[in-house]
Amino acid sequence: MKRHAASIAVIGDGTVDEGSELYARAESLGQELCDQGFRVVTGGLGGVMEAACRGARRSSAWRAGATIGVLPGHDPAAANPFVDIAVPTGLGHGRNLVIAHSEAVIGLGGGAGTLSELALAWIHGRLVIAFRGVGWSGRLAGTRIDEHVRFTGIPDDQVFGVNTPDEAVQIVMARLPFYQAALRGEP
Amino acid sequence: MKRHAASIAVIGDGTVDEGSELYARAESLGQELCDQGFRVVTGGLGGVMEAACRGARRSSAWRAGATIGVLPGHDPAAANPFVDIAVPTGLGHGRNLVIAHSEAVIGLGGGAGTLSELALAWIHGRLVIAFRGVGWSGRLAGTRIDEHVRFTGIPDDQVFGVNTPDEAVQIVMARLPFYQAALRGEP
Amino acid sequence: MKRHAASIAVIGDGTVDEGSELYARAESLGQELCDQGFRVVTGGLGGVMEAACRGARRSSAWRAGATIGVLPGHDPAAANPFVDIAVPTGLGHGRNLVIAHSEAVIGLGGGAGTLSELALAWIHGRLVIAFRGVGWSGRLAGTRIDEHVRFTGIPDDQVFGVNTPDEAVQIVMARLPFYQAALRGEP
Amino acid sequence: MKRHAASIAVIGDGTVDEGSELYARAESLGQELCDQGFRVVTGGLGGVMEAACRGARRSSAWRAGATIGVLPGHDPAAANPFVDIAVPTGLGHGRNLVIAHSEAVIGLGGGAGTLSELALAWIHGRLVIAFRGVGWSGRLAGTRIDEHVRFTGIPDDQVFGVNTPDEAVQIVMARLPFYQAALRGEP
Repeated sequence: MKRHAASIAVIGDGTVDEGSELYARAESLGQELCDQGFRVVTGGLGGVMEAACRGARRSSAWRAGATIGVLPGHDPAAANPFVDIAVPTGLGHGRNLVIAHSEAVIGLGGGAGTLSELALAWIHGRLVIAFRGVGWSGRLAGTRIDEHVRFTGIPDDQVFGVNTPDEAVQIVMARLPFYQAALRGEP
Repeated sequence: MKRHAASIAVIGDGTVDEGSELYARAESLGQELCDQGFRVVTGGLGGVMEAACRGARRSSAWRAGATIGVLPGHDPAAANPFVDIAVPTGLGHGRNLVIAHSEAVIGLGGGAGTLSELALAWIHGRLVIAFRGVGWSGRLAGTRIDEHVRFTGIPDDQVFGVNTPDEAVQIVMARLPFYQAALRGEP
Repeated sequence: MKRHAASIAVIGDGTVDEGSELYARAESLGQELCDQGFRVVTGGLGGVMEAACRGARRSSAWRAGATIGVLPGHDPAAANPFVDIAVPTGLGHGRNLVIAHSEAVIGLGGGAGTLSELALAWIHGRLVIAFRGVGWSGRLAGTRIDEHVRFTGIPDDQVFGVNTPDEAVQIVMARLPFYQAALRGEP
Repeated sequence: MKRHAASIAVIGDGTVDEGSELYARAESLGQELCDQGFRVVTGGLGGVMEAACRGARRSSAWRAGATIGVLPGHDPAAANPFVDIAVPTGLGHGRNLVIAHSEAVIGLGGGAGTLSELALAWIHGRLVIAFRGVGWSGRLAGTRIDEHVRFTGIPDDQVFGVNTPDEAVQIVMARLPFYQAALRGEP
């Protein structure tokens, strides 16, 4: 894992069950992000958050430190067992703002919490990716969250809609450098 | 103004112009909320935030302290001139979480910031009201932000869609007591 | 009460009893601040926070809206009964940062929570006042919290030590305009 | 590095120069923490924060992910070059609360920012260690920040004063398990 491996947030419903299709997809997503050398940031709890961390652990590229759980409460032990680095914040849902500051944010389904994170990531100029067909990621995929022109140098800036973990990771790899440069005001 | 006059947030686009229809509607909304003895909470800056405070100032029921501006930055002087009580937070968009903890939250148009506040208000069990036909309030009016059953005692819980300031204030008056009771776990 | 009446935080131990000398002093302080037209900001809970609000209510200058309680939790009803405006934040002790952004901050005794607020107020260039002889306010009274020159135009900048509520209010009245100007970078 | 290697915060003055004794001490502290398999959390900027990360990088036990920088602003690129994992928060000094939630917090000198972190760590039941003889760590070393009994099972609970990085790491190793158990309410 590279020193400055970018941290990519995977966000979604904290209650999806282990046997579900969404859980499986989040697991693949975590694994493929880790395969490519990215760190996986989540809210550290269950459902999609757990699955993404678990998937990263399965990657042959996994090294301790690849999964980060930004927790709402005080106790690092509240993190799911696949979190390498627990970051308790004591901020409640205020921790969503921290998650939304990851270098890219990938939504997979999700309810109001996920929605708040997608909106905050959009506000802060992050690369935002969303799985089609399910929950709030599905409703925002392929749209712009608002009409604000975030970066003039990225004419097709949008919530990039994807169908598969592979597609999501491809978009991160292809587009993150442009968003990083734009965020820093580079031409 | 009563001692415990409930604080109602008015949220929306910070860039709408003084001459616009949205600005006028926000002004009426602020005025009518104040007429009924409510305090008006906003993000303290321009556009809809300014209009709602300005409207409250026009109410014959206005007393100093009726408009509260929860600011992202450090300086109370950054508040628009119609804010009675400036609350600088230093939290950036983290201040959206504070606004979303108002007793009721009324969205009037709005982009990603407004969306994050509506989502956070939903998460925290607030009475949420949204103007139809414009921006993110329009997209959420009449829906439930997610499938989570927030209160079993409120079977029609939803983002209540409205067309006019008058309707919005009527809903606050009719429904706030039930949301207050539900939040406190009263039967 | 003026429209832009400055908000002054009173901070201290949340557990002091109603019969105690500290409680009585906080009550006088709240009353005298209100007498002079200031709003009183507290953390909204018990002890010194309650006493300061209660005192403000006794002032003949009190108008609804003069006492503001910035709460750690979600429920406005958790505020003490003398709070006019409850501001639940959901931020836990993160709400201390909001309190510390009041235009002036007055410490009266206090433990670690008060200490964090005094330190944060110092960082953010606020006028900081501390009662001598008790708790953390006593330890910081008359000192500078660090060697950082906050404002070159205020050569005796320090945590101003006081013995009585009257002295504290005198310092707010005499010095707040200079701190307000300095914060805004005015000469 | 173990999966659940505890995260230990090193806090102190962000302006100490590279050639100074404090910088050197922070560097040794970072290195020795990393030698023992701990992760090093800092505020991600200069001075003591930079030195602690730099020291960790020198450890033979260093693996990418051992240094974490919890930043006040929006841009991960603002982190010092020895930070492996940048966590921008957008919370300004609100990020101090996140740092203070590390499993142990070690103060090395420091001004008001460090003081706020030590106070917040104390509030949240963390193991707090402070270097003697310099800045706010020196003033708090060997004391209790307030009279609150944090854990009945730890009769000598205090801000543990140390003189050397080696001593600090010894205290973390000897005492962290007891604080972790106490925090979780275990007997």
